[in-house]
Amino acid sequence: MDLAQSVLAGDRLALARTLSLVENGTAEGKSALNTLFPHTGKAHLVGVTGASGTGKSSLVNQLARYYRQPSQGEQPRQVAIVAVDPTSPFTGGAILGDRIRMRDLSGDPGVFIRSMATRGSLGGIASATSAVVQVLDAAGYDLVLIETVGAGQSEIDIARLAHTTIVVEAPGLGDDIQAIKAGIMEIADVLVVNKADLPGVENTERALRGSLSLSHPLAQRMLHHGKLVTLSAQPAAPSTEELVWIPIILRTVALDGTGIPALAEAIANHRAYLQSTGSWQLRERWRLQTELDLLLQNTLVASFRSSLPAGTYERVLEDLLERRVSPFEAVERLVDGAGRAAEEVV
Amino acid sequence: MDLAQSVLAGDRLALARTLSLVENGTAEGKSALNTLFPHTGKAHLVGVTGASGTGKSSLVNQLARYYRQPSQGEQPRQVAIVAVDPTSPFTGGAILGDRIRMRDLSGDPGVFIRSMATRGSLGGIASATSAVVQVLDAAGYDLVLIETVGAGQSEIDIARLAHTTIVVEAPGLGDDIQAIKAGIMEIADVLVVNKADLPGVENTERALRGSLSLSHPLAQRMLHHGKLVTLSAQPAAPSTEELVWIPIILRTVALDGTGIPALAEAIANHRAYLQSTGSWQLRERWRLQTELDLLLQNTLVASFRSSLPAGTYERVLEDLLERRVSPFEAVERLVDGAGRAAEEVV
Repeated sequence: MDLAQSVLAGDRLALARTLSLVENGTAEGKSALNTLFPHTGKAHLVGVTGASGTGKSSLVNQLARYYRQPSQGEQPRQVAIVAVDPTSPFTGGAILGDRIRMRDLSGDPGVFIRSMATRGSLGGIASATSAVVQVLDAAGYDLVLIETVGAGQSEIDIARLAHTTIVVEAPGLGDDIQAIKAGIMEIADVLVVNKADLPGVENTERALRGSLSLSHPLAQRMLHHGKLVTLSAQPAAPSTEELVWIPIILRTVALDGTGIPALAEAIANHRAYLQSTGSWQLRERWRLQTELDLLLQNTLVASFRSSLPAGTYERVLEDLLERRVSPFEAVERLVDGAGRAAEEVV
Repeated sequence: MDLAQSVLAGDRLALARTLSLVENGTAEGKSALNTLFPHTGKAHLVGVTGASGTGKSSLVNQLARYYRQPSQGEQPRQVAIVAVDPTSPFTGGAILGDRIRMRDLSGDPGVFIRSMATRGSLGGIASATSAVVQVLDAAGYDLVLIETVGAGQSEIDIARLAHTTIVVEAPGLGDDIQAIKAGIMEIADVLVVNKADLPGVENTERALRGSLSLSHPLAQRMLHHGKLVTLSAQPAAPSTEELVWIPIILRTVALDGTGIPALAEAIANHRAYLQSTGSWQLRERWRLQTELDLLLQNTLVASFRSSLPAGTYERVLEDLLERRVSPFEAVERLVDGAGRAAEEVV
């Protein structure tokens, strides 16, 4: 049985090995992804993002634990956790939380945990994360929690991979979240004030609410009518009023599990909303097209570079550095050079 | 006289028009850049970055004012300010500070101010900023202050355009700067605690120092010897000890100008350091090569897309969405499709 088949059969060692191959962009990894890809598209991808200090990792832990032992009447889910830390593109850091988590959730075959090392470049980490998530999806994990450290654009790019994005805050982490989080607020589906047993929780919630009202004109309107945090149980057939998802704000205490069932309910509601309105398909399309375009771009550049006669790139770069040609003229020369080389071969 | 010639001759209206053409990526803008490019490479590019609320814009204002009326014995400089706000890639925002600044510095022909609208994509805003900076450099502005709002990866990408990067903090903006600023700390050359007349300035400075010691092993060592903020006047011929630049921390009060001459001195010292160690040339090379690669990539993708038979891309995308092909297989099909189309033409 080859690697991809073993992954489909539920072999955890094969899964871990495939993830490494895929993360490192090897030919074997690509081949496995080709086999696995038709089996993707079933998982609910949930992004969890927030600055360090918000207790985001504990929250993700508790969520995983809840999905394994849910409230009565619900089925346990297969849960994967992907932890990504793009904050430091220069040194490349690993994630410590992993070992702690392992101790907590280890031994449960329904949970799989994976940390991603940073890739230096932004496109790199986002596409590596995307590939890792696809493998986990194909392996049958129907809930994939993608945990990222809050860091502006990169957190936004990774959040875009998810169907549902959760932004985590906590009291006492500064009063300027409005400014810092402007970008991420616009893609937040659920806002969590974790450590809600600490003083200052009202201030944090107020700041989030203010920030939300800046990003979501509709939320702003609903705020004025005093019904922002109303969206709880959504009916199967949504009325026109419910065709727009208003981000909700929840309080949790990850350490003792307070608020976790309500958070799981909000995640399920968001999934129901996406599926009943057609937004699920739209997000899938957008996501896969973005991935196709990025991959195409990398392939074109690599194939172009290999078609250039040796030394051409370096000569043109030297001319650019000496300012004998502008960047546009340098590109023209490179394209001409590759064209001429191709003609000579013919 | 054509547009580029007018820019070189110091025509401000021609400059404003050229910047718009360049920012919008028009053919006329590219042609102007081709003419102007050989005249670039003289300006000192200084990036100023920090969260909103740090008083960064006032600081940039005061710096510009200082360069126009410097201490005795120094020549006034031609100063350009480029203000970039990449925080909100989804809505695309304008920068308010502009009009306020205009009032303050208007009428001075030695100052030119330009705000950049966001471009949606990260590569977009970074390369548009690069092009705008090149035009200002060619137009004779020997100091270009590039102001960005703190937002993770995008602020880092824009900071990479600069020779010297200044990171601005202020008291009372949260105690987790260590976490948030991990990436930017590693490329900071000068750290400024602005609003240094406010309570909490010691805490902010301590947090910066801690953050710095994490990013700069050498700074950490020097911290232990209690001489972190010692780098002031650098001799023309640096000793081995001074071959490494240790980021310095300065206090300013932008509103009344406190600390501005010291900041200008630190900027000049950093320039002298870059030039005496060869780092200036290294940064220039890195910067221009990055720009060349990005431009080449965009050109290749555009030319590939136009070579594809109509409908091919859409058909392959549909197969991908239906999961009949993996992303890798989709790219292969596209490349094959373009190849076949080219053969048929021959």
